[in-house]
Amino acid sequence: MMYERVLTGDRVTGKLHLGHYAGSLQTRVALQEQYETFVFLADIQALTTHFDRPQLLGQHLHEITLDYLSAGINPEKTTIFIQSMIPEIAELTLLFSMFVTVNSLRHNPTIKAESKNSSLDELYYGFLGYPVSQTADITFCKATIIPVGEDQLPHLELTRKIVRRFNELYSPILVEPKALISETPRLVGTDGNAKMSKSLGNAIELDSTKEEIIFKIRKATTDPARVHKNDPGHPDICPIFAYHGAFRSAGVTEIREGCERGTMGCSACKQLISTALDQLIEPMRELRSYYATKPKLVQEILISGTQHARSIAQETMAEVREAMSLNYFLI
Amino acid sequence: MMYERVLTGDRVTGKLHLGHYAGSLQTRVALQEQYETFVFLADIQALTTHFDRPQLLGQHLHEITLDYLSAGINPEKTTIFIQSMIPEIAELTLLFSMFVTVNSLRHNPTIKAESKNSSLDELYYGFLGYPVSQTADITFCKATIIPVGEDQLPHLELTRKIVRRFNELYSPILVEPKALISETPRLVGTDGNAKMSKSLGNAIELDSTKEEIIFKIRKATTDPARVHKNDPGHPDICPIFAYHGAFRSAGVTEIREGCERGTMGCSACKQLISTALDQLIEPMRELRSYYATKPKLVQEILISGTQHARSIAQETMAEVREAMSLNYFLI
Repeated sequence: MMYERVLTGDRVTGKLHLGHYAGSLQTRVALQEQYETFVFLADIQALTTHFDRPQLLGQHLHEITLDYLSAGINPEKTTIFIQSMIPEIAELTLLFSMFVTVNSLRHNPTIKAESKNSSLDELYYGFLGYPVSQTADITFCKATIIPVGEDQLPHLELTRKIVRRFNELYSPILVEPKALISETPRLVGTDGNAKMSKSLGNAIELDSTKEEIIFKIRKATTDPARVHKNDPGHPDICPIFAYHGAFRSAGVTEIREGCERGTMGCSACKQLISTALDQLIEPMRELRSYYATKPKLVQEILISGTQHARSIAQETMAEVREAMSLNYFLI
Repeated sequence: MMYERVLTGDRVTGKLHLGHYAGSLQTRVALQEQYETFVFLADIQALTTHFDRPQLLGQHLHEITLDYLSAGINPEKTTIFIQSMIPEIAELTLLFSMFVTVNSLRHNPTIKAESKNSSLDELYYGFLGYPVSQTADITFCKATIIPVGEDQLPHLELTRKIVRRFNELYSPILVEPKALISETPRLVGTDGNAKMSKSLGNAIELDSTKEEIIFKIRKATTDPARVHKNDPGHPDICPIFAYHGAFRSAGVTEIREGCERGTMGCSACKQLISTALDQLIEPMRELRSYYATKPKLVQEILISGTQHARSIAQETMAEVREAMSLNYFLI
């Protein structure tokens, strides 16, 4: 089998929720059984939009780590590390920035979307360069597999282009990563918004209590056409049905039929999903309460993961210095 | 007396010449007697325009260091260091890039000049961000005095702005540098071009032999209106007279008069400056031949300077991490 290394990460902007679980966490838990896996806490990337409030980074970092551990990311199998503690990522970003044109960055869809609201001129330099920095995140550890959503493919294509350019210019030492496209559609919010997001207030966090789950599900939007219990429903526009699809292994067809025929009411349907979500989160709560009482252990996991990532970064940086003739001597 | 620290540097793109000596080296030699002085070899900055040929960096680095030492920069008084060996400069560049707008960088006169030839889109991302990187060069060692030419003032103004923004956003730990404006006008090339430059082939290098000086001065452009020896000359448009002005302490008035009256011919005038330049360079040649035979000593000077700069960089970076709440724990 060819050597493969998986890399994923999360912006350090708040606790994780069911959207993260469905979209990436459960994939990572599966991947760690098969491949060498790296997961990073993207605190520098969080600064591209949150530079004016870095005070919360430490707290978020701790919470996301608890989310990881409780969702089943196993620190014996997955290297969890902190982006800002790998200075080689900053060094690679600076080196790559020399041969990436402003033009290629402007055509990045995220930047384009942003430019619709504000002109390119009002963008921050670091935000514009986010794909350069992402290339550094991926290449320092020579990751080969990057699990991404469909919408992130253009980013990864730019990363691949930067890697090829580096390899052509200097020496073919960097690895062009492959996308592993997630089949899970983006999880809808409890208010029916296309994206579950903490900042939209429509998220169910991974540390939710049973009561919080029941409360949020009870308040959740359903098919607005379904006024009476026996009215036929349209499951495909209902967040509750989306949750059944995302988090149940069985019984989804029956729920669809019950909804469409009007034989299962929203209240019963919501009770079913509340129970299912509570069953999903229950083992996470247990793992979380184990780790939450051991902040030193959590810190040691981060330290040891970051040290491991750092040692790989140092090896890559030595190769990069050699390829670029920057290896004058060692100090 | 207030604490002051001087910082200057040179792009690592080739040997230094009389233009560098007149414009900055002799100032540095004077400043090192008065202030704590740092001089850096800007190899990363050289990559903003020379990223496709880094192979020459090592050679250039060695030559410029010999130029420094032979011109009188004293490693006991001046810290000489290599930019790419201070990873904290890359880290600071990345952090500053979060809150600097693309707009403020576009209005940098160097970028504007470049944009006349190529559109902004065709610029390289690293080139656009050069003032951000320069701010990192200056702030990592909290330099207070930056000797600059008039043309570099807008760059330094942007650096001051970035420093103020950092201090407002996080904590006032960085130092706003002051410009020390050079009074020496830019040295004209031997072909009369406004700028002496190795790439224009109109430079007299600091390692020139007596014969090379005589040859280059003999070939140099003079006042084209002066066809016969006794024609009155116009010293203010003559490179040779500019060299008299820049490198002689006495006799300049007499030379001006002799030229304007037609009593001193170009040949005699050129002989005078050849002798003066040879006298200026002679002690440099001696120092150079001392160091040129001791590559290990030169390397030790660079290593020790870089280590000293690095230790200061690490202190500053620790303060920056604390100010930005990125000091989660130490590894």
